[in-house]
Amino acid sequence: MSRPLDTATGPLAGHRVVDFSGYVAGPTCTMLLGDLGADVIKVEPPTGEQWRHQDPFAPLVSRSFLALNRNKRSVALDLKQSAGVEAARRLAATADVVVHNFRPGIERRYGLDYATLSALNPRLVYAQLTAYGETGPQAGQPGYDLVVQALSGLLAANPSPDGSVPRRYAGVALVDFSAGYLVTIGILSALVERAQTGRGQRVHSSLLHAALGLQRQKLLRVEAVDGDPLPPDGSQTTQERLRQEAEQANAITARELYYRSYETSDGYVAVGCLNVPQRLRLLRLLHLEDPWHGNPDGIPATTEEDRNRRELTTRAEACFRERSTAQWLAELAAADVPCTPVRLAGEVFQEPQVLASEALLAFDYPGQGRITAITTGVRVGAAPIARRRPPLLGEHTRAVLAEIGLDAEAIAALEASGAAVSRKGIGSDER
Amino acid sequence: MSRPLDTATGPLAGHRVVDFSGYVAGPTCTMLLGDLGADVIKVEPPTGEQWRHQDPFAPLVSRSFLALNRNKRSVALDLKQSAGVEAARRLAATADVVVHNFRPGIERRYGLDYATLSALNPRLVYAQLTAYGETGPQAGQPGYDLVVQALSGLLAANPSPDGSVPRRYAGVALVDFSAGYLVTIGILSALVERAQTGRGQRVHSSLLHAALGLQRQKLLRVEAVDGDPLPPDGSQTTQERLRQEAEQANAITARELYYRSYETSDGYVAVGCLNVPQRLRLLRLLHLEDPWHGNPDGIPATTEEDRNRRELTTRAEACFRERSTAQWLAELAAADVPCTPVRLAGEVFQEPQVLASEALLAFDYPGQGRITAITTGVRVGAAPIARRRPPLLGEHTRAVLAEIGLDAEAIAALEASGAAVSRKGIGSDER
Repeated sequence: MSRPLDTATGPLAGHRVVDFSGYVAGPTCTMLLGDLGADVIKVEPPTGEQWRHQDPFAPLVSRSFLALNRNKRSVALDLKQSAGVEAARRLAATADVVVHNFRPGIERRYGLDYATLSALNPRLVYAQLTAYGETGPQAGQPGYDLVVQALSGLLAANPSPDGSVPRRYAGVALVDFSAGYLVTIGILSALVERAQTGRGQRVHSSLLHAALGLQRQKLLRVEAVDGDPLPPDGSQTTQERLRQEAEQANAITARELYYRSYETSDGYVAVGCLNVPQRLRLLRLLHLEDPWHGNPDGIPATTEEDRNRRELTTRAEACFRERSTAQWLAELAAADVPCTPVRLAGEVFQEPQVLASEALLAFDYPGQGRITAITTGVRVGAAPIARRRPPLLGEHTRAVLAEIGLDAEAIAALEASGAAVSRKGIGSDER
Repeated sequence: MSRPLDTATGPLAGHRVVDFSGYVAGPTCTMLLGDLGADVIKVEPPTGEQWRHQDPFAPLVSRSFLALNRNKRSVALDLKQSAGVEAARRLAATADVVVHNFRPGIERRYGLDYATLSALNPRLVYAQLTAYGETGPQAGQPGYDLVVQALSGLLAANPSPDGSVPRRYAGVALVDFSAGYLVTIGILSALVERAQTGRGQRVHSSLLHAALGLQRQKLLRVEAVDGDPLPPDGSQTTQERLRQEAEQANAITARELYYRSYETSDGYVAVGCLNVPQRLRLLRLLHLEDPWHGNPDGIPATTEEDRNRRELTTRAEACFRERSTAQWLAELAAADVPCTPVRLAGEVFQEPQVLASEALLAFDYPGQGRITAITTGVRVGAAPIARRRPPLLGEHTRAVLAEIGLDAEAIAALEASGAAVSRKGIGSDER
């Protein structure tokens, strides 16, 4: 069942994270740190972090924002005012971890760069996310999931033979999430080292490095097998090369037998056989024989082999269409062949395994009722996962500024100038 | 440029990881730990870890294995022999971290379960990866990336209107990588806590939780907006529902203006405008006006609005086809619109930004010459990333067994019975 927010701690309890990031990758990182027990302080501009405005269904509230910002407190500061940036710097100096995705160079303009902050706080772990890395011709450029998928080869990796424009898979921000995870790994390893040395350090990840990392099994050049890389010959357009790759990909699909989804009489089942015993059990169930079951991903040695393997696939497909999904799942499970039904995304909220494995958590949000979300994805010890619903804009400005030593007068002065903003948006008691 | 393997340390130097995992998710985790400085000992069966046999191009060497197993030492033990499992247990008792993806329950049969190992070594961080989680009707079942993508909704999330069978995006193991990253995050947070408490703990992640996590922006149910979940009505087949979803997705694509790839005269460019100033700059460049630029993902209020927005998209597409990719990239960059060319995967080895941002690393492998691979994806401090090429099977059996205190006689006895195996495969000097 979904688990309620509560006040339990986690392995990172006692660590303070000051988060200047927006959109997806950075907030994913800091949400994970918050889920694991850290005190995460999200510093937002007075207009609210950009992702609050991503197809909102109420002022400053969007599905995307709610999905990525639980277990954080919100402090709204105007970094364009010197009093605002001064408060931010003071806050960062109290942190164990700072995370930002400022466009490279902006952090220096704010005096929130590593040199400045580590001088104030040598224990600080300072994490920066960029689009393209810290060096190179595009290092300073802005970029998001989609454009970096395009540069990394990931966007074009699934070409369609009709020559349609490459699209992002399912609209899922694969690279943002991946970069968020990687920078979290960097931050935590720096905290592990700090426990021994007493000193923090700089951590960097980029969307480009994350996008390449997702393709690491494919993007591996072996001199003895692949030879030297050839420069592009320029005689073909990208469209023509993509169409060629689509044909090659379709040829591979036409031979695929063991690791794919099949149409049934009323839906689809996915089977995943990654070793020989599993493949033999599947063949037995389908009453098929396949001499190539030892290495089904090998390239056919002859056109005859290619034809025979395609025919085998066609026979397997015909076999699967004869029965229902439920019948196949029962038979495949009985034969110990890894299998699942192909579910539509909306169905997962009712999927027994999703409910039973505690993959969901729920919280109430002012004005929006009950919200059901996906949980962290990793469990450490027995600590329950979430404690705080996502914050209203500036909901914790006063409390946090007081915690770092500002008195009521100083806070009032910041609010009067607009350098700090308290409590905005639906459900707040504005004052 | 690509960076050579060297002997530098990293933030996890001094930590020993004993890794019983195979395939993709677990080895990804332990490779990252190795990249970051940990001493990773990969325990393999005498026949070699399964991924060595995944479309191999030489005995025990495959692209996939080389991509995921650098910075590890290999110890080959037969866990079906009591002497082999006893050596494995003794090794695990010396570890800071144990990682495995045994089918749930197998670890108890081997005496490699958390209760047994933590009794021997209370500081141990013990990480388990499963397919479906620790509880629920499918908890004990085997599963891999593809079948878990199917159950989580991810496989069907990009339906094709022709009703074709749902396929895995680009053959990329998105969920395996994601689960590998998440379990790494769990392990490191447990090490952070151990530095304070002196005690290790259990960490768990699953492919299912990771697959849901990648969809967390989409899989969020808001009571006030979405109402209660409806049970499936059963009147439609999955095929029919998928076709319906494909039509809805195509309608959204037909209105997409700001975050997509466009065809040019000789290729494709991707543009990514996620905020209002970027969208206005793109519109200016295209000489278009769009009254809906404030929330381009909003659903059209009227059929007229829908028609107008689709027409705007058609005009933008026509505009992009008039010039070359290079011309558009120059103009978009000058207008400060995030953009990249759409690259094919193979092109990334020559992409200037990939080379300049140190995204590649190279090593030599016996018999295969120079190998170029994708690096970690996160940088911590200034520590260079990689030190060891992927191991030959059993390359370090003797050295590691000696390190944990077995004398030459004991090692020879293990080798005589086949419970331990030393040095196998291409390039080794078998003895």
